[in-house]
Amino acid sequence: MTPEYIKNLLTAVKSGDTSVEAATEQLSQLPFEDVGCAHIDHHRELRQGMPEVIFGEGKTVGQIVKIMTAMAAKGSNILVTRLSADKVGELATQFPLAKYHEDARCLTLEQVPAKPDGKGTILVVSAGTSDIPVAAEALVTALFLGNNVEHVSDIGVAGIHRLLARREQLASASVIIVVAGMEGALPSVVGGLVRKPVIAVPTSVGYGASFGGIAALLGMLNSCAAGVTVVNIDNGFGAACAANLINRV
Amino acid sequence: MTPEYIKNLLTAVKSGDTSVEAATEQLSQLPFEDVGCAHIDHHRELRQGMPEVIFGEGKTVGQIVKIMTAMAAKGSNILVTRLSADKVGELATQFPLAKYHEDARCLTLEQVPAKPDGKGTILVVSAGTSDIPVAAEALVTALFLGNNVEHVSDIGVAGIHRLLARREQLASASVIIVVAGMEGALPSVVGGLVRKPVIAVPTSVGYGASFGGIAALLGMLNSCAAGVTVVNIDNGFGAACAANLINRV
Amino acid sequence: MTPEYIKNLLTAVKSGDTSVEAATEQLSQLPFEDVGCAHIDHHRELRQGMPEVIFGEGKTVGQIVKIMTAMAAKGSNILVTRLSADKVGELATQFPLAKYHEDARCLTLEQVPAKPDGKGTILVVSAGTSDIPVAAEALVTALFLGNNVEHVSDIGVAGIHRLLARREQLASASVIIVVAGMEGALPSVVGGLVRKPVIAVPTSVGYGASFGGIAALLGMLNSCAAGVTVVNIDNGFGAACAANLINRV
Amino acid sequence: MTPEYIKNLLTAVKSGDTSVEAATEQLSQLPFEDVGCAHIDHHRELRQGMPEVIFGEGKTVGQIVKIMTAMAAKGSNILVTRLSADKVGELATQFPLAKYHEDARCLTLEQVPAKPDGKGTILVVSAGTSDIPVAAEALVTALFLGNNVEHVSDIGVAGIHRLLARREQLASASVIIVVAGMEGALPSVVGGLVRKPVIAVPTSVGYGASFGGIAALLGMLNSCAAGVTVVNIDNGFGAACAANLINRV
Amino acid sequence: MTPEYIKNLLTAVKSGDTSVEAATEQLSQLPFEDVGCAHIDHHRELRQGMPEVIFGEGKTVGQIVKIMTAMAAKGSNILVTRLSADKVGELATQFPLAKYHEDARCLTLEQVPAKPDGKGTILVVSAGTSDIPVAAEALVTALFLGNNVEHVSDIGVAGIHRLLARREQLASASVIIVVAGMEGALPSVVGGLVRKPVIAVPTSVGYGASFGGIAALLGMLNSCAAGVTVVNIDNGFGAACAANLINRV
Amino acid sequence: MTPEYIKNLLTAVKSGDTSVEAATEQLSQLPFEDVGCAHIDHHRELRQGMPEVIFGEGKTVGQIVKIMTAMAAKGSNILVTRLSADKVGELATQFPLAKYHEDARCLTLEQVPAKPDGKGTILVVSAGTSDIPVAAEALVTALFLGNNVEHVSDIGVAGIHRLLARREQLASASVIIVVAGMEGALPSVVGGLVRKPVIAVPTSVGYGASFGGIAALLGMLNSCAAGVTVVNIDNGFGAACAANLINRV
Amino acid sequence: MTPEYIKNLLTAVKSGDTSVEAATEQLSQLPFEDVGCAHIDHHRELRQGMPEVIFGEGKTVGQIVKIMTAMAAKGSNILVTRLSADKVGELATQFPLAKYHEDARCLTLEQVPAKPDGKGTILVVSAGTSDIPVAAEALVTALFLGNNVEHVSDIGVAGIHRLLARREQLASASVIIVVAGMEGALPSVVGGLVRKPVIAVPTSVGYGASFGGIAALLGMLNSCAAGVTVVNIDNGFGAACAANLINRV
Amino acid sequence: MTPEYIKNLLTAVKSGDTSVEAATEQLSQLPFEDVGCAHIDHHRELRQGMPEVIFGEGKTVGQIVKIMTAMAAKGSNILVTRLSADKVGELATQFPLAKYHEDARCLTLEQVPAKPDGKGTILVVSAGTSDIPVAAEALVTALFLGNNVEHVSDIGVAGIHRLLARREQLASASVIIVVAGMEGALPSVVGGLVRKPVIAVPTSVGYGASFGGIAALLGMLNSCAAGVTVVNIDNGFGAACAANLINRV
Repeated sequence: MTPEYIKNLLTAVKSGDTSVEAATEQLSQLPFEDVGCAHIDHHRELRQGMPEVIFGEGKTVGQIVKIMTAMAAKGSNILVTRLSADKVGELATQFPLAKYHEDARCLTLEQVPAKPDGKGTILVVSAGTSDIPVAAEALVTALFLGNNVEHVSDIGVAGIHRLLARREQLASASVIIVVAGMEGALPSVVGGLVRKPVIAVPTSVGYGASFGGIAALLGMLNSCAAGVTVVNIDNGFGAACAANLINRV
Repeated sequence: MTPEYIKNLLTAVKSGDTSVEAATEQLSQLPFEDVGCAHIDHHRELRQGMPEVIFGEGKTVGQIVKIMTAMAAKGSNILVTRLSADKVGELATQFPLAKYHEDARCLTLEQVPAKPDGKGTILVVSAGTSDIPVAAEALVTALFLGNNVEHVSDIGVAGIHRLLARREQLASASVIIVVAGMEGALPSVVGGLVRKPVIAVPTSVGYGASFGGIAALLGMLNSCAAGVTVVNIDNGFGAACAANLINRV
Repeated sequence: MTPEYIKNLLTAVKSGDTSVEAATEQLSQLPFEDVGCAHIDHHRELRQGMPEVIFGEGKTVGQIVKIMTAMAAKGSNILVTRLSADKVGELATQFPLAKYHEDARCLTLEQVPAKPDGKGTILVVSAGTSDIPVAAEALVTALFLGNNVEHVSDIGVAGIHRLLARREQLASASVIIVVAGMEGALPSVVGGLVRKPVIAVPTSVGYGASFGGIAALLGMLNSCAAGVTVVNIDNGFGAACAANLINRV
Repeated sequence: MTPEYIKNLLTAVKSGDTSVEAATEQLSQLPFEDVGCAHIDHHRELRQGMPEVIFGEGKTVGQIVKIMTAMAAKGSNILVTRLSADKVGELATQFPLAKYHEDARCLTLEQVPAKPDGKGTILVVSAGTSDIPVAAEALVTALFLGNNVEHVSDIGVAGIHRLLARREQLASASVIIVVAGMEGALPSVVGGLVRKPVIAVPTSVGYGASFGGIAALLGMLNSCAAGVTVVNIDNGFGAACAANLINRV
Repeated sequence: MTPEYIKNLLTAVKSGDTSVEAATEQLSQLPFEDVGCAHIDHHRELRQGMPEVIFGEGKTVGQIVKIMTAMAAKGSNILVTRLSADKVGELATQFPLAKYHEDARCLTLEQVPAKPDGKGTILVVSAGTSDIPVAAEALVTALFLGNNVEHVSDIGVAGIHRLLARREQLASASVIIVVAGMEGALPSVVGGLVRKPVIAVPTSVGYGASFGGIAALLGMLNSCAAGVTVVNIDNGFGAACAANLINRV
Repeated sequence: MTPEYIKNLLTAVKSGDTSVEAATEQLSQLPFEDVGCAHIDHHRELRQGMPEVIFGEGKTVGQIVKIMTAMAAKGSNILVTRLSADKVGELATQFPLAKYHEDARCLTLEQVPAKPDGKGTILVVSAGTSDIPVAAEALVTALFLGNNVEHVSDIGVAGIHRLLARREQLASASVIIVVAGMEGALPSVVGGLVRKPVIAVPTSVGYGASFGGIAALLGMLNSCAAGVTVVNIDNGFGAACAANLINRV
Repeated sequence: MTPEYIKNLLTAVKSGDTSVEAATEQLSQLPFEDVGCAHIDHHRELRQGMPEVIFGEGKTVGQIVKIMTAMAAKGSNILVTRLSADKVGELATQFPLAKYHEDARCLTLEQVPAKPDGKGTILVVSAGTSDIPVAAEALVTALFLGNNVEHVSDIGVAGIHRLLARREQLASASVIIVVAGMEGALPSVVGGLVRKPVIAVPTSVGYGASFGGIAALLGMLNSCAAGVTVVNIDNGFGAACAANLINRV
Repeated sequence: MTPEYIKNLLTAVKSGDTSVEAATEQLSQLPFEDVGCAHIDHHRELRQGMPEVIFGEGKTVGQIVKIMTAMAAKGSNILVTRLSADKVGELATQFPLAKYHEDARCLTLEQVPAKPDGKGTILVVSAGTSDIPVAAEALVTALFLGNNVEHVSDIGVAGIHRLLARREQLASASVIIVVAGMEGALPSVVGGLVRKPVIAVPTSVGYGASFGGIAALLGMLNSCAAGVTVVNIDNGFGAACAANLINRV
């Protein structure tokens, strides 16, 4: 229910084309009419090129095909996250233009080429080899949302010189996503080196007292580097969404 | 150890003013010379007008006076956080220009007026009356770091229309800090309404199964609104630091 | 041991058919005779049409067949919950009139048609697609216990207008069951919109710091909307049982 | 913004007293005008006699006086919960008609006598002597909201005959609130005895592995008696709110 | 409702002094008459010399005096546990024959001298000096319930020879209560040395990762010595109750 | 190192057959000679007919065969616990006289018939159908250790009359093992009905907030019935070991 | 970037073979040139004979082959930890000289024979049979790092004499690694017997309230034997690394 | 029972001064004579200069005076840890030569000057100002046990250059104790810089999700730097004991 719609309705009332009662009825529904609100949201999404995202975990191939088909028909770009490799075959058959990013466990279907219109570069830094899938999810997502991205991997706090050597690259990013498991100390060190927004992503990498990522999560929440914020364990997608918004402030 | 310093040294080597051995000695110290690094950091801080911050909790009045005196001598602006009211008396005597923000439990000493040079406005939204101290800490900090700030309080998810009425104000901010205790659901609702970076601050407000803020913390980490990032429980200061960096991207 | 039984015994004592000693022996057993109590319970169940329920998880098909056969012989209606699809085949062969509800993982055998004699409608609201199985369990159970039911799905707090559009439907229910995973914030928002009993069901949907539903559970226990009560994680069955009792107050 | 208001506005548009532009401006604010929504809420509250409630914990006497004064001016009945005894003195001076319920740590100010217009009786059952304050909070709240209430105390599962002796009283209630600490087993036993909605309130009573009420909370969430719902630890107020809503289904 | 009572009633029915209807009425109340059950319990208590116990924590001196006065009038022996020293003064005035056990924080009033009629000796072994209060509570309780008791203290696993030197004393006990904080390893070692029932009592002694006794509790529950059972943290009273029952098997 | 050994050594010293130095050397080793201690232990085990026990979980069939063969050669009775059904085939071939108890997941090999020489009967009470495996492990173990056993199953707190009907059976046992999952309330009720040692075994039966048995474990540790002791989750074996020792006090 | 490298560079500057600008460029990279730092590290590793280690868990055989091939080309000794047996086949084909240690789940490839040049012996003590894999990982690692090692297994606290018999062996070690699951009490007893550094390794062996090793971990952290330090659950590798460093102090 | 004692006894047997029977009696007591064992321990302590340590927390001044008086009479050096300042006055009066270390909350009484006879230097590195008390406890303890010590403070991971500047000092220590709260990342960075044994001490410094030191503890247990071992939260004393043993390997 856009302002135009309201203005038209009122004009019709004034001209007598619509009765006061009929208009009252329509307008009194306003607080409950989500259609209008949804329209506005829809417009904004189209306007911003925000593509559609499907959380693939726990969905059957059939369900995903159904949702993708509906979306594709609207000409939308589509991102499917947490898509295990065994589901890709049928999707590839149905959507030959879709691309599967194995490391990231993501599938993308770009019908309209994404323009990297974010202000700067989103830099993803990951600690160990096992953290790469989460980093890759962040990279694919950030790229898909229209950002330039860079990746630096295998940068752990126990070999601090590898990080120091990247100081300039860190300083030149507009936002930094730091992905780390185990003790999750990397965001603190990165946050202490450069004055850029740092989004920390704890991963479930580790064993024993890592408790599936709790150790890393707590470490990041208690970071002594002010300016570090945290997302859920293994949530590379969410970190990229936040970085995307920050990259457009 | 700036590039200029290095160039001068090399020139002296070339001219014979400095022996190869002496220069080798100096340069081989490089990875260990934090003085140089600290200088760079120091310059950056002066350049960016980043003031000094003292974490007041667990420090005696004597310790705080000592640190503040040293800082004040450098002409720095000073922020003391987590300063309980009973410590303010003596500090006020020593630093008559300092101002105590009771709600925020913060003390500020501005020797150089802060210029609000962030890009936009940092909006702090807090849920209940008891969340106000954490929100106030965020507000005082963000202002101190040179940002325009606004505050909306008493906006809970159980009375959702109060939040909806503020949609425009939310949309006009550059970053939004959402402060909430109990179930910590407010950031999800805010994040769903506007496409702005949302920093969620769980508070220790609540009782029983709130477990000192764990319920709110977990709620925020699991937010279904992509783009929400989280800081430690009651960490209004950290949220403001992150918002300040985002506001300068 | 019904009142009739007691009266007969006393009459026999009075007439001398039963000795004082024999009667004393029998009556002194009273507090221990559950047979009488069980009878009363049994009568109440028959009187209220309360059907039999089998928790299917961890039971073999053989065990379920055995219990169902005994129950079916009494003419009871039967509900089997948490029944995985791989066990349905043999049960369908044995009980051709039984119906398997795939979403809900429930099987029902109605020998006496259930009359929906609850006062009003039990409305089940679920947040995301992955929460549907738990919602379905609640719906099947509530229906089976003799209630009118309605379902509203895909109503999350991050898209609050979808919920607002349903305000009238919410207000017209007699009890509302709200099923949500992740941050579990939906019951607070629903509870704030309408003055109806709200039963919150946290689900194990989520990952990382959702900790298998703990985040949602804690969120719901700390709901800022007074009047929300909570059941165990994924316990759609229990929520429906409570709603059924409330719907008959 | 009532229907009357809208109708008047439209009539003014039709007659030309208000321009289309001015009316468009007003109406386009609708989704954001919480005043209108608040009015509706306010009307409902007046209509249902729902009194105002203040959570006293963490508020100063001055703050409470301020809020109560504003409320009292509207003629509302007022309930203050979690009010420690040391704050009562000044409140009693300011509001001589207010009554402090020491056990419940609640203060009530009834300007309009509450009519017990709930359908039946809300029965509060508490386990040990130390659980009485939480039970009392539930009793005061339920009474204040316009319900008939009864209390049975000192009914523990380790002396089961005391509970059995109350079976009729349990069966005659419309809703039962069961308050228990330690192992929190009482709601299961009560829920197994009668087919009435049971709201379980875990208390923080206990020591060691009771972990401030977690043991009782978990026990209640895992109750083997279907139909038991749970509220937060020590939340007698919330249980009474839920019971009040159930008592009006 | 003793067998005598029932026999008398039946005799009256037989003689016609009581009508069948009146007797039916009385007897049909049986399952609900807790008075009868309580009598039976009461008889058993008198018969077994089981004294009354008051949990002192959280009770005012006034409340304790009231309960003790009622109990004392029945001639019972009384045990008050968890009684802080500041409450003893007034109790001593009211009950000059009562004895306060400072270490154990218990008060006993013996009106009938306790006869140590348990089969053997209950041996209490405690690890460190700080564990003594919990051990003392167990000792006072076990003695009060009519058992011979012995105490061995300052026997830690880090000085294993002190324990080995007591092997004969351990072997001669009928039940052993082992009280330990920190890592709680002592019960495993004791349980491995002798084939006697071992009741392990974790204490809240420790700091940091002892988490108020959780470390000791978990250690004891995971004891590799089969035959060790565990009670709640700091629950010397409960351990003594269990030992008392075992000492009478 | 028996007294005889020492006497012989000293005699040799006296006679000069052994030098003072050589004897000093041998005797100074005494505190370290476990051989003597092990002999004593071994004798005690043979004397008491205590059979050997193998924890089967995590051991290969090959390992179990090896250990059993060695034990069987000594003529010992053997109990293997936590033995999954798929390992039984080969063991049955190797040890045709062994008996597999499917419910209990235990295998026993009795070469010397066990004499039930405990004082009284060990009664195992279990709550739900799913708790039976743990109860069965306790029954098989207690029987194997030489005790008379009885089993009562399907006795939950939500149907309290079933328990009350068993009061005499409970009272006639010498020790009671109570096995329950979910809220774990059964031991409290049993412990309140009879004055017998009660060993509570929490089971991992349940879902959601049962947290694999934590809810039941905490419930039992916080039992309001004094005299209840607890073993590890699912530890039917340990409960039977403790009951066996108690049955011989 | 060794001192030699720097000296050569400076000499080239002096001679004019390298321009001041070119040298400035190179040297200004110094704090960021991890290559240089890595060289230094690399030299140290070669000097100390520290071999390369690959964490095998979560890596594919292909990835491991790739890394090993690169390492082997440098002539390094290689240790692969956490390598499941199903991955060994292909690795054995590719590296016929590699040796798989089944118990330890480790593979070693020794191209340069390790010299045991640590000061003394590293003694690994493990509690139960199930703890052996973790102990074996520690043994293989310590040996690989150039230490003499010994192993004592099946030494539990519930059979304390077995440990006492080893007192001399314990005393003769330079460092002791104690591996234990369940209640994790063994390090306390060992630490109390000898004055040697004790590294405690909790294992995930156990069930129920062992919580995957948390019980053992907490027990070890709370050890009453001063001088015990702890590593992560199941981290035999880390314990051996620490022991190796201690063995070279 | 020293070797001398045994030799004398045997000599007396040989000479006939002591009968074989009397000597047998004495020697057969050996395994139970902890006096003998204690003597041996005592000798070792005197030999190694290991002083006596009293854990002051939870002990009254009277108790401490009593223990210290007994110890002082033996000429021992004494260390009292966790001694709050309010207890120092009376102790200072009784033991004028004792010295109170305020930061460390320790009191030392040196009757025999400690000789620093450890091999190298124990370096204590602490992160923030609030971690200093724990570091000080470690320093006082290590010094007291006879080691050279050094302290580096205010070295956090968020300002990594301060740490890098200390690389040589780190490399020259024989053992390094790293004390840190919040995210506890410092030990990983230190352990990555130098190949020395690192003992990590988590502190309870922090708030919110630091959970009293759990975050730091978990971070340290999951350190990606192999060779880091961990002690209990705030356990500076234990870290120093371990370092002392390592410094004597």
